[in-house]
Amino acid sequence: MKVLRVRHGDAAFYAQLLMEQNAVRCLDKTLGLDAPIPLAEVAVLAPVTPSKVICAAGNFRDRLREMGRDPSDGPMLFLKPPSAVIGSGQAIVLPRASARVEAECELALVMGRACRNVAPADVPKHLFGLSCANDVTAVDLRERDETLGRAKGYDTFAPIGPWIETELGDPASLTLRLLINGQTVQTGSCADMAVGPFELVSFVSSVMTLLPGDVILAGSPARPCPLAPGDEARVEIDGVGVLINPVRAEGEAAPLQ
Amino acid sequence: MKVLRVRHGDAAFYAQLLMEQNAVRCLDKTLGLDAPIPLAEVAVLAPVTPSKVICAAGNFRDRLREMGRDPSDGPMLFLKPPSAVIGSGQAIVLPRASARVEAECELALVMGRACRNVAPADVPKHLFGLSCANDVTAVDLRERDETLGRAKGYDTFAPIGPWIETELGDPASLTLRLLINGQTVQTGSCADMAVGPFELVSFVSSVMTLLPGDVILAGSPARPCPLAPGDEARVEIDGVGVLINPVRAEGEAAPLQ
Repeated sequence: MKVLRVRHGDAAFYAQLLMEQNAVRCLDKTLGLDAPIPLAEVAVLAPVTPSKVICAAGNFRDRLREMGRDPSDGPMLFLKPPSAVIGSGQAIVLPRASARVEAECELALVMGRACRNVAPADVPKHLFGLSCANDVTAVDLRERDETLGRAKGYDTFAPIGPWIETELGDPASLTLRLLINGQTVQTGSCADMAVGPFELVSFVSSVMTLLPGDVILAGSPARPCPLAPGDEARVEIDGVGVLINPVRAEGEAAPLQ
Repeated sequence: MKVLRVRHGDAAFYAQLLMEQNAVRCLDKTLGLDAPIPLAEVAVLAPVTPSKVICAAGNFRDRLREMGRDPSDGPMLFLKPPSAVIGSGQAIVLPRASARVEAECELALVMGRACRNVAPADVPKHLFGLSCANDVTAVDLRERDETLGRAKGYDTFAPIGPWIETELGDPASLTLRLLINGQTVQTGSCADMAVGPFELVSFVSSVMTLLPGDVILAGSPARPCPLAPGDEARVEIDGVGVLINPVRAEGEAAPLQ
């Protein structure tokens, strides 16, 4: 099942995608919205409202080589603030303070149940599903600061969506792609992760309590790509979804819808 | 006014400290608890439930010298997960994965209103108050990872409390102290910050939208101090409060209350 978060009139709710009908069905029974609602009548929101977004820095072997790290060192974690999360269709805003912002395609793992110290084999029981993410990064600020809070933390720097795919399959064989303006610029297979998706969630849960809706971004393949105002960034994960975000400069008016 | 968050029976609520009566007054009028409640009848919780905790790495001049950084480089930010927040009286748990965990005394600034891009002079209007914090850090993991997500993110690594002091005064002249087992091991004055408290909040708000309850930790003076099981860590900030946390090893039973 593909689960969206949408706004319809004054209400925001989780909804099931009815792909063939180009519609959604409200999953909040208390709202009394039983009939399918055409997609054109809802605004698609970010599919998650996490208490935290935990990211692996350089978890793909080719990216670790690019960074000069040994894949056996284990995952390096950092956090993005929930205020950075946007959904598909919302604009990535390039801050004035940075001269080089890059996009990175990543698999997002969305937690379904609170947990701590979960073994890799038990992770699927605690997951709600999978989504696509873009780990937007101000590369010049990453190089200037020794910490990642600013470079990774600007508002709009955590696009996630468009929905949560609750059928997990085997995420270790998924293929990811980043397209800028329709051109494939970055590609990778989860099979090339130094630490697989379930092992990564297990590792994070050895550090901190995970809550429902929390999101773990599983790292980017090599060759992240710079963004410019007017670009369209597209993260595709086969069997999961397609996350599309326009790009604009800070202070530039959002285009009319 | 000193604002606590407490649990009393099944209810958790914000309360005003009535220092002379050794009691609190419930601030949630809907609960109908108008009479003072003796402190002995409530459990003191962390005074904040933040959507994010943003920290300055090395904002005191003496600490920056210790780290080999130039104070004019501007603040370096990182995040702690909300799952790491504990209140006064709760135990800091030393994880098995680390052989060296250190305490750092810090001023906590608690936001009262949502804001973005606030000028330093306007920061007081957006603050709710001040509190004491301990930026607990697994130093060996900080050295092994190039990122801070794990070293700073373990459950219990963000003690904040005991209350929020809503009278701001001039935080730039506050004195901070860290005591381990009654012995002063670290001390500093906010006058020695490279970036003052209000300038720091302004800087963070240039990166990300701040929400009510969000917390900004303003950095530690030089000489953080290692912790061992059985220690008592005490952060004192004159005019703000005293935050006390026992220390225990992971897997060790919490002492009977």
